[in-house]
Amino acid sequence: MKVIIVGGVAGGASCAARLRRLDEKAEIIIVERGPYVSYANCGLPYHVGGTIEQEASLLVATEQTFRVVFNIDCRTNCEVVGVSAGNKTVELRNNLTGEITTESYDKLVLSPGASPIRPPLPGIDLPGIFSVRTVPDARNIREWLERDLVRSGMNEYSGIDTLSKPRKAVVVGGGFIGLEMVENLMHRGLGVTLVEKLNQVMPPLDPEMARLVKRYMQKRGVKVELSDGVAGFRQTADGTLEVLTESGKAHPAHIVILAIGVRPETALAKMAGLELGQRGGIRVDEHMRTSDADIYAVGDAVEVKDFVTGQWSLIPLAGPANRQGRIVADVLCGRNSCYRGTQGTSICQVFDATIAQTGASEKLLTMLGDTDFEKIYLYPNSHAGYYPGAKLLVTKVIFRKSNGLLMGAQMLGEDGVPKRMDSFAMAIQMGCTIYDLEESELTYAPPYGSAKDPVNFAGMVAADVLRGDMPIAHWNALGDGILLDVRNPQEIAVEAVPGAVNIPLPQLRARLSELPADREILVICRSAQRAYFATRILLQNGFKARNISGGMMSRSHILQD
Amino acid sequence: MKVIIVGGVAGGASCAARLRRLDEKAEIIIVERGPYVSYANCGLPYHVGGTIEQEASLLVATEQTFRVVFNIDCRTNCEVVGVSAGNKTVELRNNLTGEITTESYDKLVLSPGASPIRPPLPGIDLPGIFSVRTVPDARNIREWLERDLVRSGMNEYSGIDTLSKPRKAVVVGGGFIGLEMVENLMHRGLGVTLVEKLNQVMPPLDPEMARLVKRYMQKRGVKVELSDGVAGFRQTADGTLEVLTESGKAHPAHIVILAIGVRPETALAKMAGLELGQRGGIRVDEHMRTSDADIYAVGDAVEVKDFVTGQWSLIPLAGPANRQGRIVADVLCGRNSCYRGTQGTSICQVFDATIAQTGASEKLLTMLGDTDFEKIYLYPNSHAGYYPGAKLLVTKVIFRKSNGLLMGAQMLGEDGVPKRMDSFAMAIQMGCTIYDLEESELTYAPPYGSAKDPVNFAGMVAADVLRGDMPIAHWNALGDGILLDVRNPQEIAVEAVPGAVNIPLPQLRARLSELPADREILVICRSAQRAYFATRILLQNGFKARNISGGMMSRSHILQD
Repeated sequence: MKVIIVGGVAGGASCAARLRRLDEKAEIIIVERGPYVSYANCGLPYHVGGTIEQEASLLVATEQTFRVVFNIDCRTNCEVVGVSAGNKTVELRNNLTGEITTESYDKLVLSPGASPIRPPLPGIDLPGIFSVRTVPDARNIREWLERDLVRSGMNEYSGIDTLSKPRKAVVVGGGFIGLEMVENLMHRGLGVTLVEKLNQVMPPLDPEMARLVKRYMQKRGVKVELSDGVAGFRQTADGTLEVLTESGKAHPAHIVILAIGVRPETALAKMAGLELGQRGGIRVDEHMRTSDADIYAVGDAVEVKDFVTGQWSLIPLAGPANRQGRIVADVLCGRNSCYRGTQGTSICQVFDATIAQTGASEKLLTMLGDTDFEKIYLYPNSHAGYYPGAKLLVTKVIFRKSNGLLMGAQMLGEDGVPKRMDSFAMAIQMGCTIYDLEESELTYAPPYGSAKDPVNFAGMVAADVLRGDMPIAHWNALGDGILLDVRNPQEIAVEAVPGAVNIPLPQLRARLSELPADREILVICRSAQRAYFATRILLQNGFKARNISGGMMSRSHILQD
Repeated sequence: MKVIIVGGVAGGASCAARLRRLDEKAEIIIVERGPYVSYANCGLPYHVGGTIEQEASLLVATEQTFRVVFNIDCRTNCEVVGVSAGNKTVELRNNLTGEITTESYDKLVLSPGASPIRPPLPGIDLPGIFSVRTVPDARNIREWLERDLVRSGMNEYSGIDTLSKPRKAVVVGGGFIGLEMVENLMHRGLGVTLVEKLNQVMPPLDPEMARLVKRYMQKRGVKVELSDGVAGFRQTADGTLEVLTESGKAHPAHIVILAIGVRPETALAKMAGLELGQRGGIRVDEHMRTSDADIYAVGDAVEVKDFVTGQWSLIPLAGPANRQGRIVADVLCGRNSCYRGTQGTSICQVFDATIAQTGASEKLLTMLGDTDFEKIYLYPNSHAGYYPGAKLLVTKVIFRKSNGLLMGAQMLGEDGVPKRMDSFAMAIQMGCTIYDLEESELTYAPPYGSAKDPVNFAGMVAADVLRGDMPIAHWNALGDGILLDVRNPQEIAVEAVPGAVNIPLPQLRARLSELPADREILVICRSAQRAYFATRILLQNGFKARNISGGMMSRSHILQD
């Protein structure tokens, strides 16, 4: 068996290594057009920021490793310039010598990845505008940031022009790479403006969660410009760039990072006549086989089934790419391995906070017309409140109304987010219901969690909703009930909800007669816990009542910008 | 319905609060013999250590909260001194006034907890010997540590006796509380000796994992004395205590902490004539109902079904106690809630490290005569190795040989342990197989994990074993194969395995003829990864080969003390 693998990073590299382990005799060729195989592209922003100091740290395995340890013919700086699926051959160009050769294959594996979108805007090719995809990209950015700029103004005392390093950056695009670049440029001491065409950062998140990410960045000094696309780029007389936006603004920058998103690399797939999906990725079956039985594809270039919604999606993530590569190796060796779909589990460091997500978002479900779900907001501590250092975990959990299936979770916090998001991710994979979450037995000691872990707590709240014990309302769809705030007057003095009646929880039983029996009562407290107790009291006393999920905490990011 | 709940901490408090939420009209009485309800007993060691400064922080909810918010008759300093199950009454003693009253109940809920074992050893009642169970216990310990001791020796210059605080502690018992107390006493600046009768610390762990915990503590300056029980206590002329051991040693101490373990409080259960289990806990059914249909029991006092083995067990943990309390409230209100059993998920901070566990251990399975399991050792990084701060995760995973079901996991490391242990815990709850772990989609960005997370990696290694791709051996049962070390000569120069042949992995294919075709080859490398590649090469070339799980890394704690 002769297998040619196109692309030597993530999925391609995983496929090659596993294929060799499973089949010592297969002839395996890795073709990588860049200078490196198996490099850590997820680490590039941190290399730019200086957290990862050495470029060499990013090189996980070298061409030499593949040759010597895996007996794989690994060719860097080598690009596939033609595919003939009929003849089962590829045309290869050595990018250093320009030499073109033809190789036949029994099986072809495409792992070309996705390329950063570079819209054809005026000035897009000006020096100082970078994407972040490859090791050379990161090197170029670092070199650019280490240049000395001649300051346009003269030194006020000496009258001599002074030198300085770049100080202002504009990052275009507020997705993962954009946010990581913002943080890393700030870390290097630059002032950073983030320009995003959408009305939120982190497009996979629901907007009320993304709003908190935006605020967090703003607090750290990032200038965030939403709902304003880039119209073009201009260079001023002193060499400084300006990022021009659709609304007419001009943001000065000594460097511009383009992180608008990526597009599946499908040039080879098209050459080979492979079927593409409607989202523009290569269409594959559960064995990662394309429409050509001898060609497989993995990684950011393919469309995957969304694990929760079943929809074809483009979800470029390293973990799935690696696992897909392994699956192809299995399948090539006659094994029945299947890819199960992608949940979209993701995580991003934002200064001292972490934002993470798994499964379906509300906006995705709404877009698909799915109405069989409910959502809850909760704000538990990352660990026992009496142990120092506990931080708030802003949590949104989405579950199927009809059967309690956990569908998605989003979480932001400065402590304990990865622990909980992995639990949610594992739970979704295993078809967990919110009733299962109630009973989960997770690690607890005061430095790490609570006897009722935030994951349990989410299950308990959701189960209270589905069992009918706690009807809930949401701030953006309250209906016409009356508002009852059960917080203390001191809390209300800090922030009140207009029009709300105040009866502190401890007085509620004695003051029920003040409430109307014929109108729905919407109960408010700080985080919806006391309001839950109040809702129970009201319901059992014959009132119609709903708890406003997340209380004043969720109000602060659902209703306020 | 009139419900009396005996014990106002964890399970009892959870039961009372939920019962009130579900039934506004029930008459609920909490009876707590101590001065506090709903206090954070898990926080006591950290209060002693000073990390939790204020005692008040430990009081999660007060008697007043229960009365005012929950309309619950909450009685502290009130002890049940008699139970008549036939009459459905309890006799209560007010511990402040001595007054005795009788209360009838419709349903009785026992949540008495477990009490620290205090063996009747000579000197056990000497001042300065403490258990750690209640807020007053912690207060007494703090006061004792803040005393001034008169130093027995005179100040060498002035000739005047000097004062100092207690400097030497002995902790008896190396379980969770013992380890937490060791850490916290060290944190306060005391020199600490840990005395443990067993040959390992942390009895629920397998010994080769516990050995690493012991070493870690020793590196931090703790004197660890294993396999030596306490024989008694003695006071010297200057008031210093001595802890005398069975082997004849005498460990001086200004304070002694007894953390030998706990015993279910079953006095009330016995009075009520309830059935006990063979482990000495109260026997309950899946609804937490005792042998008396009107009496329920929860928490550390009951025996639970081990989730993995199905055996009745005593597993005193806060999370299960709280959930059991909720379940009883449900059942009392006519709901069909069931307790699913306890996995034994636990976690403990040991200085900068974390040790955690879930599910069955090898020693438990072996004790039960279960041989249908396999184990693997792995040593992945806590996050991408190229991102600074990655730490080794010492990991042991146990799974069913016949079907791949995940049965247990143990992990020690200085970063990322809680995240992985919660994934394993959720996985076990949901009946996850190692094949599912291979495909898990967990959070990954360089600061948090790897594209192949340690949890995936565990699944991949285990699946390689079960699919027959990688037969494994263990250091303590190697059989009579020949040892092949595929590390580099430089690594072998640091530590070699006696008798092992060395062929570095990159040379293996060319040097196969040096190996015998008729003997089993046991392959060694640092962490078993290169040895995996070598094993694959050997197997596919007709050799009999097994990889030694965990390589030199596991050798260091399986074979060496």
